[in-house]
Amino acid sequence: MKTKKYVYFFGDKNNTEGSAKMSSLLGGKGANLAEMATLNIPVPPGFTISTEVCIYYMKHGKYPPNCKKQIKENLKKIEALMGQSYGSTKNPLLVSVRSGAKKSMPGMMETVLNVGLTSSTIQGLINQTKNKRFSYDSYRRLIMMYSDVVMEKNNLSEVNIRSTLESVLHNYKKQTGHKDDASLNEKDLINLCNKFQKIIHEKLNSKFPNNHMQQLESSIEAVFKSWNGKRAVEYRKIEKIPNSWGTAVNVQAMVFGNMGHDSGTGVAFTRNPSTGDNYFFGEWLPNAQGEDVVAGIRTPHPLNNHIKKSSLSLESCFPLIYKKLNIIQNKLEKHYNDMQDIEFTIQKNNLWLLQTRVGKRNGRAAIKIALDLYQNKKITQKILFKRITSQHINEILLPSIDKQEEQKALMIARGLPAGPGAATGQIVFNADKAEKLYNEGKKVILVREETSPEDVHGMYASEAILTSRGGMTSHAALVARGWGKCCIVGSNDIQINYKKKSFKTAENIFYENDWITLNGSIGFVYAGSLKLVQRKISSNIEYNNLMSLCKKNNPMKVRANADQDTDALVAKNLGANGIGLCRTEHMFFNPERIKNVRKMIVSIDENMRNKYIKKLLPYQKNDFYKLFKTMSPYPVTVRLLDPPLHEFLPHEKKQIDELSSELKTNKKLIVEKINKLKELNPMLGHRGCRLGITFPEITKMQVSAIFEAAIKLKKEKIKCVPEIMVPLVGSLNEFLNQKNIINTVAQEVFKKYNLKIKYLVGTMIELPRACFIADKIAKHADFISFGTNDLTQTTFGFSRDDIGSFLPDYLSKSIIDKDPFSTLDKDGVGELIKIGVKKAKKANKNIKIGVCGEHGGDPNSIMLFDKLNFDYVSCSPYRMPIASLTIAKINS
Amino acid sequence: MKTKKYVYFFGDKNNTEGSAKMSSLLGGKGANLAEMATLNIPVPPGFTISTEVCIYYMKHGKYPPNCKKQIKENLKKIEALMGQSYGSTKNPLLVSVRSGAKKSMPGMMETVLNVGLTSSTIQGLINQTKNKRFSYDSYRRLIMMYSDVVMEKNNLSEVNIRSTLESVLHNYKKQTGHKDDASLNEKDLINLCNKFQKIIHEKLNSKFPNNHMQQLESSIEAVFKSWNGKRAVEYRKIEKIPNSWGTAVNVQAMVFGNMGHDSGTGVAFTRNPSTGDNYFFGEWLPNAQGEDVVAGIRTPHPLNNHIKKSSLSLESCFPLIYKKLNIIQNKLEKHYNDMQDIEFTIQKNNLWLLQTRVGKRNGRAAIKIALDLYQNKKITQKILFKRITSQHINEILLPSIDKQEEQKALMIARGLPAGPGAATGQIVFNADKAEKLYNEGKKVILVREETSPEDVHGMYASEAILTSRGGMTSHAALVARGWGKCCIVGSNDIQINYKKKSFKTAENIFYENDWITLNGSIGFVYAGSLKLVQRKISSNIEYNNLMSLCKKNNPMKVRANADQDTDALVAKNLGANGIGLCRTEHMFFNPERIKNVRKMIVSIDENMRNKYIKKLLPYQKNDFYKLFKTMSPYPVTVRLLDPPLHEFLPHEKKQIDELSSELKTNKKLIVEKINKLKELNPMLGHRGCRLGITFPEITKMQVSAIFEAAIKLKKEKIKCVPEIMVPLVGSLNEFLNQKNIINTVAQEVFKKYNLKIKYLVGTMIELPRACFIADKIAKHADFISFGTNDLTQTTFGFSRDDIGSFLPDYLSKSIIDKDPFSTLDKDGVGELIKIGVKKAKKANKNIKIGVCGEHGGDPNSIMLFDKLNFDYVSCSPYRMPIASLTIAKINS
Repeated sequence: MKTKKYVYFFGDKNNTEGSAKMSSLLGGKGANLAEMATLNIPVPPGFTISTEVCIYYMKHGKYPPNCKKQIKENLKKIEALMGQSYGSTKNPLLVSVRSGAKKSMPGMMETVLNVGLTSSTIQGLINQTKNKRFSYDSYRRLIMMYSDVVMEKNNLSEVNIRSTLESVLHNYKKQTGHKDDASLNEKDLINLCNKFQKIIHEKLNSKFPNNHMQQLESSIEAVFKSWNGKRAVEYRKIEKIPNSWGTAVNVQAMVFGNMGHDSGTGVAFTRNPSTGDNYFFGEWLPNAQGEDVVAGIRTPHPLNNHIKKSSLSLESCFPLIYKKLNIIQNKLEKHYNDMQDIEFTIQKNNLWLLQTRVGKRNGRAAIKIALDLYQNKKITQKILFKRITSQHINEILLPSIDKQEEQKALMIARGLPAGPGAATGQIVFNADKAEKLYNEGKKVILVREETSPEDVHGMYASEAILTSRGGMTSHAALVARGWGKCCIVGSNDIQINYKKKSFKTAENIFYENDWITLNGSIGFVYAGSLKLVQRKISSNIEYNNLMSLCKKNNPMKVRANADQDTDALVAKNLGANGIGLCRTEHMFFNPERIKNVRKMIVSIDENMRNKYIKKLLPYQKNDFYKLFKTMSPYPVTVRLLDPPLHEFLPHEKKQIDELSSELKTNKKLIVEKINKLKELNPMLGHRGCRLGITFPEITKMQVSAIFEAAIKLKKEKIKCVPEIMVPLVGSLNEFLNQKNIINTVAQEVFKKYNLKIKYLVGTMIELPRACFIADKIAKHADFISFGTNDLTQTTFGFSRDDIGSFLPDYLSKSIIDKDPFSTLDKDGVGELIKIGVKKAKKANKNIKIGVCGEHGGDPNSIMLFDKLNFDYVSCSPYRMPIASLTIAKINS
Repeated sequence: MKTKKYVYFFGDKNNTEGSAKMSSLLGGKGANLAEMATLNIPVPPGFTISTEVCIYYMKHGKYPPNCKKQIKENLKKIEALMGQSYGSTKNPLLVSVRSGAKKSMPGMMETVLNVGLTSSTIQGLINQTKNKRFSYDSYRRLIMMYSDVVMEKNNLSEVNIRSTLESVLHNYKKQTGHKDDASLNEKDLINLCNKFQKIIHEKLNSKFPNNHMQQLESSIEAVFKSWNGKRAVEYRKIEKIPNSWGTAVNVQAMVFGNMGHDSGTGVAFTRNPSTGDNYFFGEWLPNAQGEDVVAGIRTPHPLNNHIKKSSLSLESCFPLIYKKLNIIQNKLEKHYNDMQDIEFTIQKNNLWLLQTRVGKRNGRAAIKIALDLYQNKKITQKILFKRITSQHINEILLPSIDKQEEQKALMIARGLPAGPGAATGQIVFNADKAEKLYNEGKKVILVREETSPEDVHGMYASEAILTSRGGMTSHAALVARGWGKCCIVGSNDIQINYKKKSFKTAENIFYENDWITLNGSIGFVYAGSLKLVQRKISSNIEYNNLMSLCKKNNPMKVRANADQDTDALVAKNLGANGIGLCRTEHMFFNPERIKNVRKMIVSIDENMRNKYIKKLLPYQKNDFYKLFKTMSPYPVTVRLLDPPLHEFLPHEKKQIDELSSELKTNKKLIVEKINKLKELNPMLGHRGCRLGITFPEITKMQVSAIFEAAIKLKKEKIKCVPEIMVPLVGSLNEFLNQKNIINTVAQEVFKKYNLKIKYLVGTMIELPRACFIADKIAKHADFISFGTNDLTQTTFGFSRDDIGSFLPDYLSKSIIDKDPFSTLDKDGVGELIKIGVKKAKKANKNIKIGVCGEHGGDPNSIMLFDKLNFDYVSCSPYRMPIASLTIAKINS
């Protein structure tokens, strides 16, 4: 039997066994190192231990047979290429041990550097480098890292060895008068190495291993174990990375950028990751190790003189190396056909590439880069769409803080970026207060240690939520993400005092009503009210180019849910193909009209009711006129009155008094009427077409307004095709009853003006029963539109208004995966929709099918609608671009 | 082409064309007349014009071709048999023209008697009968009937000719000093005939036809037209008789029971229709016509001397004819194998049978007769079950008024029997008041002119409903039938004065709070509070025999919904095979416990909550112990806590104060908690297993109680198999979460007592989504039980509590056929159940499937459950017998 291959070497073009295609086996990092080696790009030689070993190790707690042998063989190959020997006391090879999963999990797993340094091999390093200080500094770093990553994790005591050693270092510097690590000399470092080893032995009851092979094997195991570390597991939960994948481990010859002024290190992008502009972009530091660039202690220098000339740029300091690096970055981008994020180190004038990977970019850059590559025929349309994520679109659509204000602003705390976007508001510490101020028209930010289901109403009322505890899956984070609300959680920088209604940061105290501003995309909290900007994306050329490409790949159209002409204008500018849902009830709440609406509702008979209904007609006609005109020539779907009448009635004494005196009706009678209209479960009560059936005069008025408006436009030669939608149909006769009224009114209006217009009559499918009788309905309907919000409510038996009391528990206990109001539930709601579509199409193959629930804008849900060949999805205007992109992704 | 046959003759054995099997074509009456003729039973000869003619007439407004010819030919045959001639001035034949639909519609259509009498034929009648008074009385009757039935209906004026003529008759008697019709002499009658004809001409602008053929043809047409009369249409709507059937018309030689003391008439049953006892039972009157027996002006005599000897009985007065009749009734019952209702006339010592039909009987008689016939091998088991209707069972189950009290009681009004059963209570005139008194524990009867959706809460709170207006499909009637509530509508005998809170009858005034008693089965209202009896049917031998026969034909078992041991005892006595639904929340409302329940709910943390939950444990354990013991050895399904916690909390200041002081908790906090638990749509809120998941300690306590009780019984060697049911499951993980708690607690209890018992764990399927994931659930469940109430609520999006505001409108506008909470909706809910059953059985072929919604006791709904091979239905105890009968009907 052939021995299974566990270890894959990379070094130079001829000695490399992996490739970029093998990322499942070798992880992204290992696969790309192999790919670079094959491309003749200088990478420090090394080998990748495959993810299969990790999977084996997780199962059996030990290396698979033969694996250690393969590791040793590959170590030999590194030695050969580097001309060094692992464990040698003369010319020792040192290695780094790094994780590398198929999908990047930055910072979630462990790394050990300088592996192979022992009390004997350090002499060899000193001989080779002629630099005792460097050698002992490297030794110190290994001891600190190894004791933390390998030894502490294997120890059952609750010692935090890293912080112990760091405070020893801190005290040593204090006692010896050193300001920073760099000023420590070789003696100091030898002292520290000894002190550290002693403390480790004491605290962990185990010695720092003075054996290079033990160091290597244990480091590899520590990386494997870190796959199941708490941080990593939580991260995978959020990013939906399967636990079964496992990580690969990369063992690679160490190269040092901190060996003197002929050395250095840097990170770079093949294009600007913020703007997408096509030039080589990055930072570097001379005489430094990689972590120094990231840590922010020293300010890195620009890579080149592209934006402005700098004597400190790599291009100025190492022109030859820069030239070489520039060739490499060009080669890499060309090879991968995507913007790359690379890491490099210069060791004594030798350039080494340590990593290449697809570079993270913001929304603006993602669109520009993908479009540029597509226009230069580097990538196909399909890949262009694939490279732009919903997150990218959100980034350019969500409000953000004005750049200049944000730069000058006082950052008071940091936390986890749980809900992207930006928000500004006045601090409140209590959910009820938040709701109260919200009702007074104020903008508030709810600040809590943690949130609980009992805070949900206050969370809803707030512009954003800030918590001092909890992680990315805490209650606050889950709820905020569900609502698309800006949110920062786990901000340890603030200390809340509920009694005093204040929170403290390191330097300040903030009180209730003070203004703060949150950048939820990065987790920064600022003092004061900063200016927010909603990007004018409709004037952004890249956005418009992307959207017109998307539209060409949208066999399923994208419409907007919009109730007024102003919303419609936004939608049209964002590219809407029509309005899929105009909720007429919102028109009723206008202060001028609500009085007549109320009078209509409390009317004692049909005559009186008719009188007040007629007063509403001119308003509604004008509403529809403006709406149709704005959306012309696109269709507009108008839903007839839907909510229970109780929602329109006054509850405050003053308003009731007014109504009573205007109607010349006994106040008691009005209060009685209000009470009578109260329902135990209004969601399942007298609403939707049930209103239009019991009060046909309401339907008549609304439909008259629609046709009068349409006829007026026809006279002005403006195209408009109203689509009249009957809500909450559950029985065929409900639909027929309302359709009959609609057609009768249409004929009356057409006769009155001696003009005709085209119109459609359809219904919402938003009850389980409607799905089962969709065939019967379809025989009489021009279109059906799935109302997935209500359909989700009835399918699950979840009231959206009341779900807050148990949904967070459900999510945290994994009872359900996702809020079914955000992402369509395939097993229940999806099955009902399938039944409905199948029946409807069988009965009427020309029927137009759409969706107008929130799910119309959710990528996961759109997949199903596309699969079922819906004619359109309709969602709120700012969700349309994602919908359009998602459909293009599927159909390109 | 052969001429289509429209007319079927009946006369003697050799001259009869129809048979009992032809009731679709000839109607019930015509088919049975033909059958009797074939059996050699003396029936006056005649012919039946088929229902096809009616259908043709309704469509074309005229007779089909050739029909009139066939009528004339058949008239000739009657003449031949009777030795008379239609239209003869010497020996004239007179005929009756009667309706006769496939299904009897008593009193709903028209009849004309004595057809053929004109100013010329009357002379022949006088000659033949030598009885001028009789002849003119017959003429008078024809004129009154014909003018009403034929002439008025064809006239557009709004004259009520019958009441006009009746007041003429009334005044004439007054003026001439006659007390009743019988004392009018021949001169009076001649005068009246002339007066009548004159008035008819004046009022209807058309002459009473003096042409015998015109009389016949117009009478036949009038009967056809009466098929679409308002009364008939409304009756068919209630009885669900298709409008398309049409009626047949029977034209038959007149025979007269009022020709002197050698004549008479009677109605009889082959068995006693009230008790079912097997003896010839009936009434007769000498020298009378059929209507006299029914009208109640003269008191009829008994038919025979079976109960007690009477010199006025037919047996005593006409011994030979009685003997002949007795032979005929025996023959008829033997022939039809069912109790017959017969009408006969004796004309000058000649016996004629005018009708035989299956006799209507009450519940008690229906059961006795069917069982007797079955035991004598006259009918099969299948027919036995078919002959007993749900209505029959209801009659013996519903409360009724004590017989003796009812006989002595003062009947104050009559109305339409809209909801069967009996009820007694205090009068209220307002729905709110009704609800208020109900909440105070009083029994009330709501009295209204009409009811409207706004009265529904008061109707619900009332023992019964009485209205002065409206018919069998009025709001009150519909709602009451839906609830199985006693109800009398359209009682014109009462005049309500809302202001004075009173109603007047002809002789009395009744005020609010006065007691009345209703017999809803016959529509009688009595003064005072009469004693009601709930029949002790469990000691009724016939009932028990029937039930044990049913049980043998019940492959699907019948269980009861019962929450306490007292209910369980009733159920067991009625024949329950187990309890299919024990709602544990009802146990919580007991005053001793509700305090601890409330304390549990307002607890601020888990510890405090646990403390109060534990106090409930002994109560619950004792509940289950008694329940299991009562039902042993049958299984008991216990549903875990279902309703939202808010339902348990106090709302009155006093109770809140108490709770606050007992808990030593700030009152404000408690009020806050109560408000926080309020939900917008509690039906879709935090209830069902959602409670058990967020508060696992509640599930633990309930399950501990169940197992502790079961173990105690095991120690006492009493068999019990608890079936624990998780409510409102919509996701697999919900079920698994609760099942895990149940199994864990079981192991703990078993360990504690070192004893084990058998138990099942299952769930209710009451949400649309649960039907779609029934396969996943079934893999882990021992049983599933469809909760069709909630499933109907979510499938239709109807809140049962709020449906009153639109359901009556929906029923009256025919938007829906039936209240879906009474009869299972096949198209929506039924389809979901089918999906659920199919998926569940596929995943687990041994899964037990039941239903525990109200539909479990509804015959129409049971058909579906049987078809899907459910293991059991569960319903309220008093609905079980109907369920058992229905299943036996299907399966015998």
